[in-house]
Amino acid sequence: MAHLNRQVLLKSRPSGIPQAEHFEIVERPLAPLGEGRILVRNLYLGVEPAMRGWVAAGANYSEPVAIGAVMRAFAVGEVVESRLAGFMPGDRLTGMLGWQDYAVSDGAGLRRIPVSDLPPSLYLGVLGINGLTAYFGLTDIGQPKNGETVVVSTAAGAVGSCVGQIAKLMGCRTVGIAGGPQKVRLCAAEFGYDAAVDYKAPGFEAALGEALRDGADVYFDNTAGAISDAVHQRLNIGARIAICGTASITSWDPWPSARRIERTLLVKRARMQGFIIFDFASRFDEGIAALTGWVRSGKLRYREDILDGLETAPDAIAGLYRGENLGRRLIRLGA
Amino acid sequence: MAHLNRQVLLKSRPSGIPQAEHFEIVERPLAPLGEGRILVRNLYLGVEPAMRGWVAAGANYSEPVAIGAVMRAFAVGEVVESRLAGFMPGDRLTGMLGWQDYAVSDGAGLRRIPVSDLPPSLYLGVLGINGLTAYFGLTDIGQPKNGETVVVSTAAGAVGSCVGQIAKLMGCRTVGIAGGPQKVRLCAAEFGYDAAVDYKAPGFEAALGEALRDGADVYFDNTAGAISDAVHQRLNIGARIAICGTASITSWDPWPSARRIERTLLVKRARMQGFIIFDFASRFDEGIAALTGWVRSGKLRYREDILDGLETAPDAIAGLYRGENLGRRLIRLGA
Repeated sequence: MAHLNRQVLLKSRPSGIPQAEHFEIVERPLAPLGEGRILVRNLYLGVEPAMRGWVAAGANYSEPVAIGAVMRAFAVGEVVESRLAGFMPGDRLTGMLGWQDYAVSDGAGLRRIPVSDLPPSLYLGVLGINGLTAYFGLTDIGQPKNGETVVVSTAAGAVGSCVGQIAKLMGCRTVGIAGGPQKVRLCAAEFGYDAAVDYKAPGFEAALGEALRDGADVYFDNTAGAISDAVHQRLNIGARIAICGTASITSWDPWPSARRIERTLLVKRARMQGFIIFDFASRFDEGIAALTGWVRSGKLRYREDILDGLETAPDAIAGLYRGENLGRRLIRLGA
Repeated sequence: MAHLNRQVLLKSRPSGIPQAEHFEIVERPLAPLGEGRILVRNLYLGVEPAMRGWVAAGANYSEPVAIGAVMRAFAVGEVVESRLAGFMPGDRLTGMLGWQDYAVSDGAGLRRIPVSDLPPSLYLGVLGINGLTAYFGLTDIGQPKNGETVVVSTAAGAVGSCVGQIAKLMGCRTVGIAGGPQKVRLCAAEFGYDAAVDYKAPGFEAALGEALRDGADVYFDNTAGAISDAVHQRLNIGARIAICGTASITSWDPWPSARRIERTLLVKRARMQGFIIFDFASRFDEGIAALTGWVRSGKLRYREDILDGLETAPDAIAGLYRGENLGRRLIRLGA
């Protein structure tokens, strides 16, 4: 029986945040499976802030998604047919399976995930790219020490909430920056931040100054923009800034300006470093083992924001940038 | 016999580069030497770009020099009278002895320098703060690897020329950026750069692009400003930027703007780190040993720009920023 495969294609290239109009959904029959291939039915698809970069024309850390191609996306799926040694129906995998019902793959770049009592969606979030980004970005780039203050932007988000909790597990004081009272409440109530500041509220700078009255030793930066400019004024000597994302910048064309950073880094002997989680691929097992232990023991909490059905995909990135989700945004397919 | 001591005092606080008018020279008799003190006759005084920061009102990495106080300065001098155990007339010392003929000290913060065939002025330059800044900034912050490309701004300067030569000794390809044909010639002829680019010449960006056709792995940044903006466009993946100085910024009030740096660091997984040589004080012996070996074997060349007499001091910082010196600027006293 030929399966029908619905796919979300990139229709046109956005200059800023991808909107629903930049995508289209098509339905195509699946060709018979070739030798050396597996057919994977996707269970959950990821929706990432980073997708803006993946479809942007400018230089980036990966090739831009081609116009007319299936939108690149992390997913978890289950093998439904295999003509590839080592893969069996029922195997669960994660990797760049794309925004589509079914993916055909030669196995390259896919990771096996355990079939366990833990929901498979976690391997797209707290036990996947988000948790790993938090874990390696914080421990390897931020390098917090016991007793230091760690400040996190998009503190209630999928990555930020892990950063805050891992920093706390490492003995740090944690300060979260989030947008709106609901997310600020989550920071304290669910993710254990010692202080949380609303960047959308009047008096943000003063509130941040109060929360960082002893300065910031590590800044895990998911936003850039005015939030980061405010944090940069409050760095301690020897501070480390891990640049993870630039969510607050709506467009890089024209390239935005900011206070020149060199003198701040010089006076504070501070370090600012960008990182990309793929550079840590050889250490993912280490990271997942640590994260799984914390999740099982209840020390690492997470939230999911699950949309239902592939038809929610085209507007899902724009929704992230509108700040409408509380937790890791995923799309659940044909449950 | 009471010595007369001429001193250069900070008369008023500059908002930008200190000019002659911000200083005044006074002459005062020296009081009889107290118990636990030494009297040091200065031989050479340093003139540093960093002095701009030392007299600035804004937050800096050391307390600003007070109005009416002797201008803070590195110097080398010789003990002429001692009432402090462990110090003898004839001992040579270096440290913050100030812009004056004689300094009275309790020995704190002073380092002994060998009386050898090497001229004492070197301990203010290639075997002093400049060489140490180059050595630790390059090896510890820049961390160049054999075969990488190292680019240096103010490449023919007292620090930059050491950076370029040490990078070459470490097996790197070196690209110097300097202002004007004379300094560019020095880069190649005297300091062994593989390529040198004149930032004052038309077509600077294109020439830099050609010199960095394989990108930059390490940028030793003495300038910030437009020079740095041009280098930042040519970083390789994993590049390291050592922020040593901001010589091209004439004023930080108002604070200048630049292209926002986060996306560049993120896409290139690059690191930008400020450092201050005093943070390496516990390792100065290691640095001086390495530098002395290279100087003695002729592998590390240096230039000095020696002004004669204390009366040259007030205008000497402004002269640095006018770019009039070729080599480490020093003031020789009463030779």
